Amino acid sequence: MSLHSDNCSGASPAVMAAIIRANEGSQQSYGDDTIMDEVRAQIRATFEAPEAAVYLVATGTAANSLAMSISCPPWGAMFAHRNAHVIIDECGAPEFFTNGAKLIPVEGDNGKITPETLGQALMRIVQGDVHSVQRGMLTLTNVTEAGTVYTAAEVAALTAAARALNMPSHMDGARFANAIVATNASPAQMTWRAGVDVLSFGGTKNGCLGVEAVVIFDPAKAWEFELRRKRGGHLFSKHRYLSAQMLAYLADDHWLQNARNANRMAADLATGLGKIGVALRNPAQANILFPLWPASRAQHQGAALMEDRLITSWNTTPADISTYLAAVSA
Amino acid sequence: MSLHSDNCSGASPAVMAAIIRANEGSQQSYGDDTIMDEVRAQIRATFEAPEAAVYLVATGTAANSLAMSISCPPWGAMFAHRNAHVIIDECGAPEFFTNGAKLIPVEGDNGKITPETLGQALMRIVQGDVHSVQRGMLTLTNVTEAGTVYTAAEVAALTAAARALNMPSHMDGARFANAIVATNASPAQMTWRAGVDVLSFGGTKNGCLGVEAVVIFDPAKAWEFELRRKRGGHLFSKHRYLSAQMLAYLADDHWLQNARNANRMAADLATGLGKIGVALRNPAQANILFPLWPASRAQHQGAALMEDRLITSWNTTPADISTYLAAVSA
Amino acid sequence: MSLHSDNCSGASPAVMAAIIRANEGSQQSYGDDTIMDEVRAQIRATFEAPEAAVYLVATGTAANSLAMSISCPPWGAMFAHRNAHVIIDECGAPEFFTNGAKLIPVEGDNGKITPETLGQALMRIVQGDVHSVQRGMLTLTNVTEAGTVYTAAEVAALTAAARALNMPSHMDGARFANAIVATNASPAQMTWRAGVDVLSFGGTKNGCLGVEAVVIFDPAKAWEFELRRKRGGHLFSKHRYLSAQMLAYLADDHWLQNARNANRMAADLATGLGKIGVALRNPAQANILFPLWPASRAQHQGAALMEDRLITSWNTTPADISTYLAAVSA
Amino acid sequence: MSLHSDNCSGASPAVMAAIIRANEGSQQSYGDDTIMDEVRAQIRATFEAPEAAVYLVATGTAANSLAMSISCPPWGAMFAHRNAHVIIDECGAPEFFTNGAKLIPVEGDNGKITPETLGQALMRIVQGDVHSVQRGMLTLTNVTEAGTVYTAAEVAALTAAARALNMPSHMDGARFANAIVATNASPAQMTWRAGVDVLSFGGTKNGCLGVEAVVIFDPAKAWEFELRRKRGGHLFSKHRYLSAQMLAYLADDHWLQNARNANRMAADLATGLGKIGVALRNPAQANILFPLWPASRAQHQGAALMEDRLITSWNTTPADISTYLAAVSA
Repeated sequence: MSLHSDNCSGASPAVMAAIIRANEGSQQSYGDDTIMDEVRAQIRATFEAPEAAVYLVATGTAANSLAMSISCPPWGAMFAHRNAHVIIDECGAPEFFTNGAKLIPVEGDNGKITPETLGQALMRIVQGDVHSVQRGMLTLTNVTEAGTVYTAAEVAALTAAARALNMPSHMDGARFANAIVATNASPAQMTWRAGVDVLSFGGTKNGCLGVEAVVIFDPAKAWEFELRRKRGGHLFSKHRYLSAQMLAYLADDHWLQNARNANRMAADLATGLGKIGVALRNPAQANILFPLWPASRAQHQGAALMEDRLITSWNTTPADISTYLAAVSA
Repeated sequence: MSLHSDNCSGASPAVMAAIIRANEGSQQSYGDDTIMDEVRAQIRATFEAPEAAVYLVATGTAANSLAMSISCPPWGAMFAHRNAHVIIDECGAPEFFTNGAKLIPVEGDNGKITPETLGQALMRIVQGDVHSVQRGMLTLTNVTEAGTVYTAAEVAALTAAARALNMPSHMDGARFANAIVATNASPAQMTWRAGVDVLSFGGTKNGCLGVEAVVIFDPAKAWEFELRRKRGGHLFSKHRYLSAQMLAYLADDHWLQNARNANRMAADLATGLGKIGVALRNPAQANILFPLWPASRAQHQGAALMEDRLITSWNTTPADISTYLAAVSA
Repeated sequence: MSLHSDNCSGASPAVMAAIIRANEGSQQSYGDDTIMDEVRAQIRATFEAPEAAVYLVATGTAANSLAMSISCPPWGAMFAHRNAHVIIDECGAPEFFTNGAKLIPVEGDNGKITPETLGQALMRIVQGDVHSVQRGMLTLTNVTEAGTVYTAAEVAALTAAARALNMPSHMDGARFANAIVATNASPAQMTWRAGVDVLSFGGTKNGCLGVEAVVIFDPAKAWEFELRRKRGGHLFSKHRYLSAQMLAYLADDHWLQNARNANRMAADLATGLGKIGVALRNPAQANILFPLWPASRAQHQGAALMEDRLITSWNTTPADISTYLAAVSA
Repeated sequence: MSLHSDNCSGASPAVMAAIIRANEGSQQSYGDDTIMDEVRAQIRATFEAPEAAVYLVATGTAANSLAMSISCPPWGAMFAHRNAHVIIDECGAPEFFTNGAKLIPVEGDNGKITPETLGQALMRIVQGDVHSVQRGMLTLTNVTEAGTVYTAAEVAALTAAARALNMPSHMDGARFANAIVATNASPAQMTWRAGVDVLSFGGTKNGCLGVEAVVIFDPAKAWEFELRRKRGGHLFSKHRYLSAQMLAYLADDHWLQNARNANRMAADLATGLGKIGVALRNPAQANILFPLWPASRAQHQGAALMEDRLITSWNTTPADISTYLAAVSA
């Protein structure tokens, strides 16, 4: 058991079973498998978006970068929270896929952009002045890197500010399921109804082996996405294995159940930490906690246990939480 | 059963079993899983290359494009057979990953570059003239797109011509196993001993779900490769599933056995086609055949069966071959 | 006097005088100078294109590459004659500015694409197949690299084939003036009336110091062009000096008079060479000749005089021609 | 007369005379003109750098972007003051030429990076972590965008910090002459002796029509620079006109005399503003002033005169200054 990262957990039995089933017989390659037809229908139903274009890739960085590359020209500014994964943790992948667009860090407490901080950042771009990059797009991460959650209303307010300036909005939903569970918003409410144009819909961290969907609510750029995906080396020949994961993930609310467990375990962990006097840097809203370890405690224990960031997963158990709390309380 | 593409076959039982095993417990993410340590050791042993850098990605286009991006500057010429996958079938991925290097098509019968045709192509580049792209790299596909095979000696002659002009050589080995089986060369003989600097070592088409190794024989560019892989969105968070496939693929000569079956079935198919008067465009050397269907036969039968290209796979059976031959002979 | 290249000639007195005049007083920078207003009006009048967007840059490679970058996406195929400057002589600049689009060489005698050879090249692109680059654009060079000239009707036939496949057309008119003089077409007839969407209108080789106009007949992409020009480092701060050259070039048919001299001198040179038994590889239509020097002659004389390519210029004189003919006849 | 920008001034008589002289006769093209040989020798002498590679381009954005592209890989971080021209005013040109490297804004009062603020910015990059861009390069602007000047000692301290982390340093010297005049440092002291690896040496703003030199003190990357310059469309065919400007600029300390006038006029302007109660945002050290106009004054006068930024030029006269002061004092 690890609270280090949800990337360290394996895949759920349901997802593994789907992979095994998908292995039977021949299937058309490069996304023409019959399972993908089911995935497309299921995502459209889940998001109440019958026109949406749906594509699968295997990594979150690929999903985000490709989504951003169809949303922003090379001379565009991409507004993101200053701690966003796309700024800090992707080694310049958005710059690579957009051919050099510029990420503009936006301030905000608890990992969240606000209309005010977005407004301040927008003013740094001199629209219509050829010497400056131009307004390009907004990208929001939900669950945020700080473990907090945007409500659908908060998302809507930010995308509206972007749209007023003719900018589309992307949501990095690597932990989208946890955000949905945390807010009780419907997938549609959290995305296109809140003004999100493209969503990176994460599966990997929440019980899959490696699959992310890109959901493009306005399909006008679908073909461009397909070409960029191929050109980026992200079109799988034996695509059925991506499809199978995603279909199992969506079936029977598996994605929501997994996230529900992770969020509940994080809440229990937060409660337990509070009882032993460990506060959190940000409110505990989903499955990521940033404990503020007292200096005294660090002296008494091995630092290894006291990670900056604790993440619960689809398979974290109550026993995992109590074992961990016992260890850090010792 | 399909003879349409080896991408339509599933994964072998051994590979599936490895995926299932790898799912147990927690594992470090992003390539730090313990299985990858075994993969690295196993590939170094297989290739007799104890210093080689070894990386895994999920698609052949990613493997090729990343390998080429560490081999050629943006102003370089990349010499490849005019029918090479990197020229025809990757939607410009090599151009994208190299930031605009230029693929120079090289002529050659049966899908193979010769020292003569390579020499002619090299003369088209005015080295030292700033108006022209400069000599960059050589890339060879083995098995070729024509279903033929370069011997290790042929590879060595071509890479020597490249090296004489300070160009490194890459091998697109999407079907490397089939080339090894066809030539009886050792992996070392076919690659670094023959002057190959970087190899795309395919697993997907030959019994895996989706995994390709990039083997960099001179590890000086290993760190650059890691950064480019991440930046390209090709570093898997739950990397263990790539590692598990590759480890099973290498174990007990599984990769060679799979390829041996495919090559044998193709030979049987070629013999059978010959008996009913269907010649082949290129010599049958591995697992790809290009039948020259007589016009008369096309009139009597559905064209669907008579594909331009027939490919056998790790799981093609003698019964598949006889069924197919019976159908096209009807 | 040099017949080596029209890049070795200086600037005409009229152009130099304009530069000197432009130096007086202050002027707004970055293209907002008042001279540019006159240039824009003059080019629109010359081309009978009151809506055209007009921009100035200093090199032909910049003009071509920027023009191509607004005409073709990164995954597009750019069709050009196999000897075109954009393929052979620009060190991959079109690939750089388009972010990796692919130049497809088209065959054709005398440096000219024909509807047949264009058709053959177009068939090499599998439109709608995500594995292949997609049809992007056509680019024609007039005067061609072989010294031949497309008539307006020939241009129209080729751009119509492109347009039928939804491809825009660009003309590399580094020697546009010489083509106009050679064909007696009007600028409008040779360009937008013949289906050309963007023109690189050369001044440098024909009496200027260094200026090329990019004329965009459909101005929808004008703002994108401005951003790409700035981003490419091609927006001049003291832009007045580009404007002044172009204005003098256009005034009083200076551009046509210069080209008329060059074409006439080339015709005289061709006649003179014929008289001493030297044939030409291509018809002499503009200001470039490719003499087929007899082997016997090469033995008697220094090879230096007998260049592969002879180019006349705006300031080549009858005396230059007779001196040269005398020298090679000696 | 304009105090709006030094880009609005014309060229000096000496530079114009050189252009006119250079127009005589034929010259080799593409940088092989004999004048360039003199420029190279002169710059090497001026900078006491007999091995330096020297190239000319026509715009500051081209000089900076090309210089940065040979200094930083695509996955590198480029550290620059947050108000630097390369961050704010070049529409993403550095990102374009470096293929997507990331500009990291560094804080600092008066437009100047300090060792402390540089240290803070450097800590934001997790070197050796593949998820983060890696330390790439440092770029300093001298004269800064705030009109202040780095001393040679300040430059040396910053480049030493960069070098300690294996990063090369670039100087954007669009107003290098003004910095030399302001500090009395020698060109060598301000550049390679202070750890600068590549210099953009500006001519345009200080009396030329349009020419900037890129001086590469370690010529190992000279050939790469040449290829990138060509590929960027920045190699002039009639290169003699760039050479002529630069040669005249360097002759007889013309560049220093021009800057001396500009700096002196700015000092006079600062004094005059002080006398009428207008303070400056930053110390007046070179030729750029940022007046802090009192609100009361703005009500009495047209806002047009009271620009945020005042810039003096090589040809600003004492009469210009007194006229301006009289106008804003009225």
